Amino acid sequence: MNKELLIQTHQRIKPFIHKTPVLTSQLLDEIAGCNVFFKCENFQKMGAFKMRGAANAILSLTDEERQNGVVTHSSGNFAQAVSLAAKKVGVKAYIVMPENAPQAKKNGVKTYGGEIIECESTAEAREFTAIKIQEETKASFLHPSNQDEVIFGNATAAIELIEEHPNLDVIITPVGGGGLLAGTALAVNQFAPNCKITGAEPMEVDDAYRSLKSGKIEKNESTNTIADGLKTYLGDRNFPIIKTLVDKIIRVEEQEIKEAMQLIWERMKIVVEPSSAVAFGAVLKNKEEFKNKNVGIIISGGNVDLANLPFG
Amino acid sequence: MNKELLIQTHQRIKPFIHKTPVLTSQLLDEIAGCNVFFKCENFQKMGAFKMRGAANAILSLTDEERQNGVVTHSSGNFAQAVSLAAKKVGVKAYIVMPENAPQAKKNGVKTYGGEIIECESTAEAREFTAIKIQEETKASFLHPSNQDEVIFGNATAAIELIEEHPNLDVIITPVGGGGLLAGTALAVNQFAPNCKITGAEPMEVDDAYRSLKSGKIEKNESTNTIADGLKTYLGDRNFPIIKTLVDKIIRVEEQEIKEAMQLIWERMKIVVEPSSAVAFGAVLKNKEEFKNKNVGIIISGGNVDLANLPFG
Repeated sequence: MNKELLIQTHQRIKPFIHKTPVLTSQLLDEIAGCNVFFKCENFQKMGAFKMRGAANAILSLTDEERQNGVVTHSSGNFAQAVSLAAKKVGVKAYIVMPENAPQAKKNGVKTYGGEIIECESTAEAREFTAIKIQEETKASFLHPSNQDEVIFGNATAAIELIEEHPNLDVIITPVGGGGLLAGTALAVNQFAPNCKITGAEPMEVDDAYRSLKSGKIEKNESTNTIADGLKTYLGDRNFPIIKTLVDKIIRVEEQEIKEAMQLIWERMKIVVEPSSAVAFGAVLKNKEEFKNKNVGIIISGGNVDLANLPFG
Repeated sequence: MNKELLIQTHQRIKPFIHKTPVLTSQLLDEIAGCNVFFKCENFQKMGAFKMRGAANAILSLTDEERQNGVVTHSSGNFAQAVSLAAKKVGVKAYIVMPENAPQAKKNGVKTYGGEIIECESTAEAREFTAIKIQEETKASFLHPSNQDEVIFGNATAAIELIEEHPNLDVIITPVGGGGLLAGTALAVNQFAPNCKITGAEPMEVDDAYRSLKSGKIEKNESTNTIADGLKTYLGDRNFPIIKTLVDKIIRVEEQEIKEAMQLIWERMKIVVEPSSAVAFGAVLKNKEEFKNKNVGIIISGGNVDLANLPFG
């Protein structure tokens, strides 16, 4: 990894992404006891940082590869990110989704121009269907978190944050599949080498925490968390980066996630996903550790079901 | 009214307010068929434009008046605005609130340093209690919408919007007590004389619409609307301004308010009050009228009860 590669990545995707704002809140700083800088990827195109990695992966394809399209299996933000990025680049996107996926998510993909291929609702069926489409169409497979181009694309959120605020003591991101944490770690390592990198994950799906302890990729026996974007586990491309560069993983209870989310909505007036609130929850839980520090947080996204909120 | 007075007002309150961002959304523009510029007073201090008028009213007091404090009766945003503005200027604030006001609103006032005086839950009791406090303390009474200094302070939101976007065809604000619409009208008249000024109010409390028709201040027989900030009626200070300068009032149904609110939350990822959504609802309801135009909307505030949302 060198700095130049990350700079090139940023240049490559700039026409396809928003430069999202970094917001602060005096009230939340008082509550947290430190200075928090929220990098608001909830304001990113399609509502999540996933747009950065998807755009970079598609733009990194050769002309020949572009002609054959791309395929992914996802029912979340990455499906929408691939659909939108592919549309903007003029590439066909095949999105494998379980037949019982919520209609709202299917509509999101369709809105952005992706072609949905339905399959049974098992991990095996999804992978099998994606492979079948690859064989039939020669489309390039894109992984939501465990692919170098995706990780490099994700890194650009932290690059922008560090450009605006070069004196951060620590940057915290949520960790699910590990693509955001690994990308952020690469950016911090190159652009702010004195800044620490911390991951935040729900106690209920603490696979990344356990993986760092054991030195190998751990999985979760259950995934009972409100942070629906963080149920997956690390991969062989991002785990080595995380193992080398990440300072620690902080685990956050479900109630703490909800409280952090409510504070952000009420005080900052912005809509953020539960997954994003995990990182702020980690700060609130460890006030002594972060006292008076400059803390960057990547707000990963803002796509929520308004009819099903955890408040009250 | 002259331009210089509004410029002085803006200079006076600048150290006490945020310059709030103007946000746009490509998706919402496509849905609305015009270019919408949202002036986001939900990001204002204490979460609403009311901070501007309250700050100006308090800063306009003489030194002697400041020593005696200020008093208002309100259970909404103005109570919090007066509490916070008074605290920042170093003035005592007495807030008359009905004894059955929600604890959350009482807590809000206390957080900002206001002293709550409870009274019975009738308009008469509120006014009587406020008068009693005025007599006892010589505090200056501040009205949420029908006082010149408050109206001038409110005007500064539109001044900032016009500074950033001088080519607006129309600016729309919600109208309840009339303080925001009147202030906006004064600003538009001085700073963007070719721009039209439109009010938006719930069909259920269409007193301003009827007042413009009849030429006198009308009231509402019932106030059955989700837009809880718009239940009041115009006053003798703001009605003459509205009558002279406002182009029209558009009335919006409850369902249209909810849909506009949901679109803003889902697409822009910001938390706005139902009252704010009324203005965007007026655009969605009249797409032909606004087609391809540059439309400014004052998002009045973002203080909502997250446990009691109208979605789903």
